[in-house]
Amino acid sequence: RIGVLFSGGPAPGGHNAVAGALDCLARLRAARGGAGGPRRKSRKRWTPITPSLMSKHVNMGGFDLLGSGRMKLSSEAHFAAAAATVTDLALDGLLVIGGDDSCTNAAYLAEAFAENDVECAVVGVPKTIDDDMRGGGVEACFGFDSASKVFSEIIGNVCSDARSARKYWHFVRVMGRSASHLTLECALQCQPNLSFIGEEIEANGRSLSDVADEIADVVAARAASGLHHGVVLLPEGLLSFCPETSALMRELEDLMSEVGSPPRPPEHSTESEAIVWAERRRAAPDQLENSDVRARLSRASREAAAQIPDAILSQLLLARDSHGNPSLSAIETESLVAELVRAKLAARHPAALARFESRTHFCGYEGRAGLPTDFDATYAYALGYAAATLAVGGARGVVAAVTNPWDDPKRWDLWGVPLARLMAPERRFGCDRLVIRKRVVDVDGDAFRAFARRRERWKLSDCYVVPGPAQLSG
Amino acid sequence: RIGVLFSGGPAPGGHNAVAGALDCLARLRAARGGAGGPRRKSRKRWTPITPSLMSKHVNMGGFDLLGSGRMKLSSEAHFAAAAATVTDLALDGLLVIGGDDSCTNAAYLAEAFAENDVECAVVGVPKTIDDDMRGGGVEACFGFDSASKVFSEIIGNVCSDARSARKYWHFVRVMGRSASHLTLECALQCQPNLSFIGEEIEANGRSLSDVADEIADVVAARAASGLHHGVVLLPEGLLSFCPETSALMRELEDLMSEVGSPPRPPEHSTESEAIVWAERRRAAPDQLENSDVRARLSRASREAAAQIPDAILSQLLLARDSHGNPSLSAIETESLVAELVRAKLAARHPAALARFESRTHFCGYEGRAGLPTDFDATYAYALGYAAATLAVGGARGVVAAVTNPWDDPKRWDLWGVPLARLMAPERRFGCDRLVIRKRVVDVDGDAFRAFARRRERWKLSDCYVVPGPAQLSG
Repeated sequence: RIGVLFSGGPAPGGHNAVAGALDCLARLRAARGGAGGPRRKSRKRWTPITPSLMSKHVNMGGFDLLGSGRMKLSSEAHFAAAAATVTDLALDGLLVIGGDDSCTNAAYLAEAFAENDVECAVVGVPKTIDDDMRGGGVEACFGFDSASKVFSEIIGNVCSDARSARKYWHFVRVMGRSASHLTLECALQCQPNLSFIGEEIEANGRSLSDVADEIADVVAARAASGLHHGVVLLPEGLLSFCPETSALMRELEDLMSEVGSPPRPPEHSTESEAIVWAERRRAAPDQLENSDVRARLSRASREAAAQIPDAILSQLLLARDSHGNPSLSAIETESLVAELVRAKLAARHPAALARFESRTHFCGYEGRAGLPTDFDATYAYALGYAAATLAVGGARGVVAAVTNPWDDPKRWDLWGVPLARLMAPERRFGCDRLVIRKRVVDVDGDAFRAFARRRERWKLSDCYVVPGPAQLSG
Repeated sequence: RIGVLFSGGPAPGGHNAVAGALDCLARLRAARGGAGGPRRKSRKRWTPITPSLMSKHVNMGGFDLLGSGRMKLSSEAHFAAAAATVTDLALDGLLVIGGDDSCTNAAYLAEAFAENDVECAVVGVPKTIDDDMRGGGVEACFGFDSASKVFSEIIGNVCSDARSARKYWHFVRVMGRSASHLTLECALQCQPNLSFIGEEIEANGRSLSDVADEIADVVAARAASGLHHGVVLLPEGLLSFCPETSALMRELEDLMSEVGSPPRPPEHSTESEAIVWAERRRAAPDQLENSDVRARLSRASREAAAQIPDAILSQLLLARDSHGNPSLSAIETESLVAELVRAKLAARHPAALARFESRTHFCGYEGRAGLPTDFDATYAYALGYAAATLAVGGARGVVAAVTNPWDDPKRWDLWGVPLARLMAPERRFGCDRLVIRKRVVDVDGDAFRAFARRRERWKLSDCYVVPGPAQLSG
């Protein structure tokens, strides 16, 4: 009897991972799924997953078969509740389909089960459209391939529109909190005029102002040759890669904990908790006006904040997820950059300003829950199958893996990797804690170097590629 | 020798229309294309379209083979310049691939040519993703099918994400300036919780506040049954359909002409004209502060403006295209509605407010220039073929048409419809003028009634459909 849960944002292929696990367990005829996130389990909501229920979801996007939770397991009480649930349900194993935060939870849960003699396997399945959980044998996360194809379709179409209408500069923010893999992949697929990779910006210590300068110079150079359009890709995490805005965000975080700004309530908090929180959140800006915030910053951060409009400064203050990460998806970085470019043009290239008209886009939610591509459908199924096999074998704190996933699926081998091999200490909420390392873009890697070799050519002439909609088989 | 030009925003299939015309003319071996919009012609830029050039563009989206212009032909000088160009190039005919505004231009151009004994056929090809140019034998515009499939893929994915993550209300604005056909089609394809059709709102005289009330009530009803997510579709033209915001926009227009706010410069104005305009535009908000605008409005419009934040009021003042239409694509109606719903919840359903978190989307540019679907590829090709046949026959002021386009292409008949049959007087820039009637959504038609029958069921339970990416053959 194996429980399965989705954790974190959806990724295309999630249902196929469950289908793989179900098929693996079919001969035991005893698959059961726990509904909702970790907290839900403590309320004993669970659903048996029957083959006929599964057949309605396999190859479909989304996580709606089970829903998804997003909550850090941090206290002894959380672990005790989880242990009670698996004991009540008589689970022999638990599959956690999730990204680095969720698999970190899974590792701690496995440890807690071991310490308390709870006989329950815990196996992770590497899921994230960001593709930032890799290493130690995990070669890819399911979801990335599908999301990058949805985003590339949109970005390619925007490029095509740009060179047809010939009058807009499009600023496209691409989802990917801590790693710019999706931005890099879309850049290679669509060849827009400019793409910024967070890891390179961080490595070179480039400021947001430098980024805006570079864009403004390209806008001016293209305008001089009669081209008043262009496409710019920005990674969602841009502000956390630029050193001065990253420092600003850390200072804001400290400032907010000082004045006791409330963290977001967990997903499954009670209604009354949520109401109290919403009221405190509405009150927070009154306690701490933007002008007040600006005054209390260090000199460097005050300068960094000076370029940021009030509306976006408020987004920086208030947007935070339950893992303590800034909720970058709620910050309109693309509008901020477009405004900065306008200001730079006014200062440096007034002639180009007159014809500069910007449009903004965010490639995000529509990529998380779309239909899986052929690769993700097969890969997630294989990972789910591997995870169920490992769980039946009693594995604790491992993550399912496939050797050489880019090879023909007929030659794949399924195996498991200890989660500990992926972990390293990281600072969160002011203290160090072992978490799964994020695998960010390697600026010495093949993908980035292929991009770096080509990008100069893309700036002034249009080398756009329009991939069109993903074509699915079967 | 036939010239061809794209006019207005791109639509998938445009290149196929040119390919159809080229194949039709192949036996004459003399096809030529004029590059750019009407104004460009007067600068004598043109490109011969060879079969090898064409082969790189057929079945691709965008209008980049020729680029596109967007300018009203209004003065005698414009018509004289166009006549000089077709005489210089010795054109026997001109194909205008465009929507209602462009085909209106084509009709006036044909008249001007006839009055001045210019021997040049003028034939329109009905193009617009909005699908609002129909009637008199024109059964469909190419581009609508492709755009609605790109938007439905995105909206379906957003629905899937909503029911997976279970915590966001998504507000999606769908392109379509004067008609809500695209919103209606996406509503029928994806079955989101709420969709608003501009024509129904106008027919019933519903205010923006009524719309926000209805959404807030559904948010509260769903929250009461534990559902804290949802998807709402809004037509791009919403503000021009609600009577009080529509009246407000008309008053703002009058106010702006009073204080001499500059209209946008035409696409191909000179650099110095554009710089002068940009400076006047930057100065306009100083001449006329939002507070000043608010004070000078009628009482009814002042009330309507009271609910609109300053940033969006500025968008209403400044966003206007060269045809005199408000540039609705630059107005963030989806953010405005999300904020109004938040305010309504605070007033009417405070318990539901705590868990209300909104995300906004705009389905627009990515649908205009994507790859054509099989239907649009074939249909646009047939229209182009028909248009070239008509032009060779010397037709003036007609638009290409296909009988029963929903039937098997083998049974299609190609013909032409006089543009005059599509025209009616309309008020623009303060005077009446014959223009092509927009065919808006018929609230007594089959499509709307199918939607109206089903929509109640979609509100409280999730009946989402996720169409996935368009699948192309060939």
